Amino acid sequence: MSGATPLGPGREFDAVRSLLRRWGDRAAGIGDDAALLDVPSGARLVVSTDTSVEGVHFRREWLRPEEIGWRATMAALSDLAAMGARPLGVLAAIAVPPRWRELLDSLGDGVGEAAAAAGAPIVGGDLTGAGELSICVTVLGAAERPLSRRGARPGDAIYVTGRLGGPRAAVTAWQRGETPRADCRERFARPVARIREGVWLAAHGATAAVDVSDGLLADLAHVAAASGAALELDLDALPLLDGIDAAEGARGGEEYELALAAPDDLDTARFSRELGTPIARIGWVRAGAPSVSATLRGVRVAAGGGWDHFS
Amino acid sequence: MSGATPLGPGREFDAVRSLLRRWGDRAAGIGDDAALLDVPSGARLVVSTDTSVEGVHFRREWLRPEEIGWRATMAALSDLAAMGARPLGVLAAIAVPPRWRELLDSLGDGVGEAAAAAGAPIVGGDLTGAGELSICVTVLGAAERPLSRRGARPGDAIYVTGRLGGPRAAVTAWQRGETPRADCRERFARPVARIREGVWLAAHGATAAVDVSDGLLADLAHVAAASGAALELDLDALPLLDGIDAAEGARGGEEYELALAAPDDLDTARFSRELGTPIARIGWVRAGAPSVSATLRGVRVAAGGGWDHFS
Repeated sequence: MSGATPLGPGREFDAVRSLLRRWGDRAAGIGDDAALLDVPSGARLVVSTDTSVEGVHFRREWLRPEEIGWRATMAALSDLAAMGARPLGVLAAIAVPPRWRELLDSLGDGVGEAAAAAGAPIVGGDLTGAGELSICVTVLGAAERPLSRRGARPGDAIYVTGRLGGPRAAVTAWQRGETPRADCRERFARPVARIREGVWLAAHGATAAVDVSDGLLADLAHVAAASGAALELDLDALPLLDGIDAAEGARGGEEYELALAAPDDLDTARFSRELGTPIARIGWVRAGAPSVSATLRGVRVAAGGGWDHFS
Repeated sequence: MSGATPLGPGREFDAVRSLLRRWGDRAAGIGDDAALLDVPSGARLVVSTDTSVEGVHFRREWLRPEEIGWRATMAALSDLAAMGARPLGVLAAIAVPPRWRELLDSLGDGVGEAAAAAGAPIVGGDLTGAGELSICVTVLGAAERPLSRRGARPGDAIYVTGRLGGPRAAVTAWQRGETPRADCRERFARPVARIREGVWLAAHGATAAVDVSDGLLADLAHVAAASGAALELDLDALPLLDGIDAAEGARGGEEYELALAAPDDLDTARFSRELGTPIARIGWVRAGAPSVSATLRGVRVAAGGGWDHFS
């Protein structure tokens, strides 16, 4: 473990040492009371924390331990993507029940792979016993011109990256005791935070962004509230995985795609060519009281909804 | 909630809004996907994350909800103290079981009071359902010359702040079904991170520091391992609460005092006068294989031990 400060004896620290061995060069500077980081001159520090809890965000029988670690880490990194920030580092606080102890290394592998995929070193964390598995991932990033939820202006278009509907379809299948379609399962189990896309969008005129974690309609409601604007969506334009219904795609959470406002001349062809990621224009920002409304096949459908992890 | 970005509808966000109302000016800039912070020019960013879990770090019947929130926050801030860092902000990720829902505001009050006491705004967080209460607090700070665990040099003296033994005595009393002594209970329920003390010590020659979270002997074992030095402690010099046995004081965790190495001419009188905090010289750093040894009434006693939250 090059660069790590040696730790004293103890079972907790044996588990930390095991994780550090597996992470290798992916971990940096762990072993002090806190991590040290330098924020590039001219950039602002961007920081977010996100918890994944067994039985709330996933069930043990749905996912392999590596996937649980990957998913928890990408879910947190997705908040950096929504701010247009480059990752500087990841901290993983894992609360581990006895029945999960032997799977901790595999879980850690998933955390390490997700951090590496996003180009973020693991700079710290915490390991504790618990009655249920809980992974609290804190992500640190830097942005010269961070995106927020506040900047959507009347006349902007609304866009969304990727193809929606997979995670919700996978969860629905599991809840019915069925096996989800492979592409839907993959979207739930191995989400990819749209880090490069967020940086590109921040540099190319996006005015507001949010990541789709609670469902497109619910997340855009935050943009409407923050920007003080009315958002009108055309759900017929929604990019969907094959066979997914638009109403489902608009409500499903855990997508970790980006929904954003930008001028309607955003160069979507260049975006997709440079990043290999689809992007679609799905609506407009209008002057008016904060709201999200949507039409499907020309008919106005109820907006709102989405996942609420607190219910 | 001046300065906060408005949030969309949803029960989770109602709970967040309630916390934000209670925090008032103690919260800053919450409501985007991530928080923005500026690190002072010339300083390094110091960051740490720490989780407090019901049934592991505390029991519900021991503490009021405010105390649980305070304690979880101060435990995390204590890591900044050990690095000699000034707090820049706090993020609180709270996983709340249904039976805790109505106590969430009180819990949040404790988080807000502890952050305010340390001069740190609450800049973000996360709220989710769970089966057990878990509070993951991430702290961000800045330091021009951060302390680490690595710098202890042969010839340095070892010091500890405060008076030890209260938290362990309180927990022992609760575990026996007794009522803890008020001063011991207060030390467990309302710890104070030694932030100003850490900044002072970093500026006045301390070479290494750690906060006493797992027990003085266990935490100094990290300093010994990190600094590659042998630490020799005189437990007769240990500053203790009245009636506490030195062996107990040396092993009790959750103290959130600072243990440090510094030249033996550290001006302890000035430290106590300026900060109002006791500090005592309790041993020496020697050349040798990393180890911690201790004598009590002139007799060598076994070292090691301490609390292990993972066992």
